Amino acid sequence: MDKKKAVVLLSGGIDSATCAAIAKDMGFIVYALSFDYNQRHKTELDFADQTARFLGVFEHKIIPTDLSLIGGSALTDNKISVPDFKEGNTKIPVTYVPSRNIIFLSYAVSYAEVIGADDIFIGVTAVDYSGYPDCRPEFIEAFSSAVNLGTKKGIEGRPFKIHTPLVDLSKDQIITKGLGLGMDYSFTSSCYNPDVKGYACGKCDSCIIRKRGFEKAGIKDPTKYSN
Amino acid sequence: MDKKKAVVLLSGGIDSATCAAIAKDMGFIVYALSFDYNQRHKTELDFADQTARFLGVFEHKIIPTDLSLIGGSALTDNKISVPDFKEGNTKIPVTYVPSRNIIFLSYAVSYAEVIGADDIFIGVTAVDYSGYPDCRPEFIEAFSSAVNLGTKKGIEGRPFKIHTPLVDLSKDQIITKGLGLGMDYSFTSSCYNPDVKGYACGKCDSCIIRKRGFEKAGIKDPTKYSN
Repeated sequence: MDKKKAVVLLSGGIDSATCAAIAKDMGFIVYALSFDYNQRHKTELDFADQTARFLGVFEHKIIPTDLSLIGGSALTDNKISVPDFKEGNTKIPVTYVPSRNIIFLSYAVSYAEVIGADDIFIGVTAVDYSGYPDCRPEFIEAFSSAVNLGTKKGIEGRPFKIHTPLVDLSKDQIITKGLGLGMDYSFTSSCYNPDVKGYACGKCDSCIIRKRGFEKAGIKDPTKYSN
Repeated sequence: MDKKKAVVLLSGGIDSATCAAIAKDMGFIVYALSFDYNQRHKTELDFADQTARFLGVFEHKIIPTDLSLIGGSALTDNKISVPDFKEGNTKIPVTYVPSRNIIFLSYAVSYAEVIGADDIFIGVTAVDYSGYPDCRPEFIEAFSSAVNLGTKKGIEGRPFKIHTPLVDLSKDQIITKGLGLGMDYSFTSSCYNPDVKGYACGKCDSCIIRKRGFEKAGIKDPTKYSN
């Protein structure tokens, strides 16, 4: 039987890299998809490219768009600062980009329909995460239903399946899983606010979650931190 | 009471212009949203701009992206020709752009969340249309559910409402409705395949549906056709 194709959303971070490694390990031909959305941490695209090359994906598309025209997030509006991590914060932080995963998944569905892939992978996790609503399983499920009603492929009885293999894993479990599949996390970056040299700040939510994940997994974090 | 804001997807065609006129008539402050997605008929953006100015919308954003990187449609891949209209065709035509409305609505949700609007308008119609699955009410309903689970605003109990005021109207009814609201359709364009001067082809699905709409409404079509 021919190998099946899958679209994998690739951000340059740990989760999406692990997700791509999992899709590859499951036997899929990986079509990676990233976005140049005028994000503050555009350096993540270099890491996405490195991850794609390291994993030997079949194709890696980077879609240009400009979410800074809409703004509303510390990641897309330079007037909003990236806050340092706060222990016990339960509010959705200002790094939340409204509809980001909704937008990214919409493009993934388009790409999957064009290449004839049933399968889409997104590295959302609802354990060690920043409380973004579009990372939650109930959203993914509802979105899947919507796109299977709103696409030619879906209504023709060839529905899309959106895989979220990391959704129940903690960050250290994700790292352990990826390492077991041969992933090299020096090709990833998590920081929301890297300095001009590309060094991670070590203070934002995403850096702290990453650091703690490596610590708990008992693995040295290969990230270059400025702090 | 303060006037409420609404995001209106504006393509440059008849339906979205009418939709914007309806939103304005309903008392909303209109925030129009268009996309420069490397479409074959990019001239539609000039018409979207004219419509926005004619209606006096509060703001008109044009988001750049590039769906030709994904392709798969006669509107985004120059290697696929725009077919002439065929009477009685029941298949989804090659002008279908996979996930286009899904992508556009995702941005509309993002924009609405940032400006604090509950209301989004899209001029889909399931009567005189080309059979695109993302124009159907069942898709819009499912998509609304998904975004209300996947956004901060949605989960905080301030859900989005996606208005489809044209969904049950035929093209002539839409035109009559718009004219009643003062819309001037010379500021709109429907053609998928305009010539270099911007004249409409008069032969594609969209041109024929438009022509017939004006005929049935008993109104002169202000479009400049090359044929």
